[in-house]
Amino acid sequence: MPQNRQFLLDSRPQGEARADNFKLVTGDTPALKEGEVLVRHHYLSLDPYMRGRMDDAKSYAAPQPLGQVMQGGTVGEVVESRSPRFQAGDKVVGMGGWQEYAVVSAEQGGLRKVDTTHVPLSHYLGAVGMPGVTAWYGLTQIIQPKAGQTVVVSAASGAVGSAVGVLAKQRGCRAVGIAGGPDKCRYVEQELGFDACVDYRQYADAPSLARALKEACPGGIDGLFENVGGMVLDAVMLRMNDFGRIAVCGMIAGYEGKPIPLAYPQVILRSRLLVQGFIVSEHMELWPQGLQELGQLVGSGKFRPRESVAQGLESAPDAFLGMLKGRNFGKQVVKLV
Amino acid sequence: MPQNRQFLLDSRPQGEARADNFKLVTGDTPALKEGEVLVRHHYLSLDPYMRGRMDDAKSYAAPQPLGQVMQGGTVGEVVESRSPRFQAGDKVVGMGGWQEYAVVSAEQGGLRKVDTTHVPLSHYLGAVGMPGVTAWYGLTQIIQPKAGQTVVVSAASGAVGSAVGVLAKQRGCRAVGIAGGPDKCRYVEQELGFDACVDYRQYADAPSLARALKEACPGGIDGLFENVGGMVLDAVMLRMNDFGRIAVCGMIAGYEGKPIPLAYPQVILRSRLLVQGFIVSEHMELWPQGLQELGQLVGSGKFRPRESVAQGLESAPDAFLGMLKGRNFGKQVVKLV
Repeated sequence: MPQNRQFLLDSRPQGEARADNFKLVTGDTPALKEGEVLVRHHYLSLDPYMRGRMDDAKSYAAPQPLGQVMQGGTVGEVVESRSPRFQAGDKVVGMGGWQEYAVVSAEQGGLRKVDTTHVPLSHYLGAVGMPGVTAWYGLTQIIQPKAGQTVVVSAASGAVGSAVGVLAKQRGCRAVGIAGGPDKCRYVEQELGFDACVDYRQYADAPSLARALKEACPGGIDGLFENVGGMVLDAVMLRMNDFGRIAVCGMIAGYEGKPIPLAYPQVILRSRLLVQGFIVSEHMELWPQGLQELGQLVGSGKFRPRESVAQGLESAPDAFLGMLKGRNFGKQVVKLV
Repeated sequence: MPQNRQFLLDSRPQGEARADNFKLVTGDTPALKEGEVLVRHHYLSLDPYMRGRMDDAKSYAAPQPLGQVMQGGTVGEVVESRSPRFQAGDKVVGMGGWQEYAVVSAEQGGLRKVDTTHVPLSHYLGAVGMPGVTAWYGLTQIIQPKAGQTVVVSAASGAVGSAVGVLAKQRGCRAVGIAGGPDKCRYVEQELGFDACVDYRQYADAPSLARALKEACPGGIDGLFENVGGMVLDAVMLRMNDFGRIAVCGMIAGYEGKPIPLAYPQVILRSRLLVQGFIVSEHMELWPQGLQELGQLVGSGKFRPRESVAQGLESAPDAFLGMLKGRNFGKQVVKLV
């Protein structure tokens, strides 16, 4: 059996997460038991939700246990199988964690075969995976936009945000992104096809960002897909139309423990908003429907998601910490082969 | 025709509303045209929403015009009628405004006959009126509690809050109030039949109020009916169960322009909350259903709402300003006869 390198959670962050919260270890992969498969990971997914699991505080997911392999989504190839359900060479997506190999129960390991004819393998971690379905769920089940309405999404160049905009355009909406920096905004408008993208870094506070949003959203804002929180959320709330919907998917601005008070909760009342938090793993019954639409969009070339690819398992901690600061550009993955 | 006294909105508040924003005038009531009735008001309703209308800012209702009679709900008696739909002696509820008499179109004036056999006339401004239906709508349509769940309501001794608790108890819920001062809390528990009431004035900040709520709500909080905002809302959010619902009915803590940031918006995500603002006048189709249940509860004596009765039209401004500071105890009305 091959040698395996793994990242364990070694300590919980005090304030900001740091590289030394993770520990790289090397060991043998155990021999397969009946019903197990050995997967070699080609890509590891890095996602903002992982930061919440590093803490011991109440969250929607159980904390990541200390001393255990960091949890995370992976795609790879079956290299050995003792299950009739998989054979060597199968491309699979699963929750293999921050490691190069994983031994997985074919029945209970959450492993799923994927077809890479039209969709590159890594996209099953992004646009045609959990982030894509997250976008699809929040947009179609919470925001429920009608054609002609305006949908805004923060972190618009990211794995979730980019899918929100593309899906909104498919529904005849005006899609407006918020992103950090001119390169990301250009990508959101020109490559992803959003109608507009506002660079929040150009604005010092929520009222000035709200003025910029007024130009980008002349008809007001009917739906917000929120990934960030803080000033960005405040600014959008100032422009929400009556009966608007806010799908709360993430508040990455607060993930390192910084307070991110909501400045204008009165708007919820004044504009009769619906604000709904959600986590996509609680709605597994809808994944096939979402993945089908996303797979078609990516497979047909209508949606060309961008990736930030870090090389080698050892780069995972820095890539993860950079992503929390918005240094990634598109879906952050780590290439392991 | 009788002399009429009226309060006009004379100026808009700069910060806190003041008595001199209102102006008392006396005049003749105009002669009735065909299809009109003359109503003598017995009670005027004073409600927190009126404060929002005194401002010129964007709100869900058009601002109260300057120099016009202050708008407001009224109950009274038809004293003269030139419509076949009403006759002298009819008891009616309507939006007659801050005045002793109103000339109203029988067809378009929103006038509705009420039966005072079992329900005292003034209660059609409170428990069996707009505030009661507000409670009924937020509870049954947004919070949608199941038997055994815990529902918390702020401003629990008020016109809306008291009805929320009584309606929640009818549905087999644990009803917990938040109110200001021991007298109000005693009333909420002993007269209204809530399971518990927490006096927010005993606590300096949201975390300490949250600790008190933990005792009052040992199973956590499934539904919040929010009338206040600020620290009270923050504290309840810290105790919300997963998939909890927050019906945002009012944020009186911010009505005088004080910022009332929401301290912990992350809870919306972490606990997958639904937060929904609403205004009951946009759901008129459900009023009959709500009023029927409320009328039965009051008529049967199961719900004995309390009133703060100010005497005479001239007392309206001070009673209104006092209500905004929580000085009323139960539904605030002004007795005009």
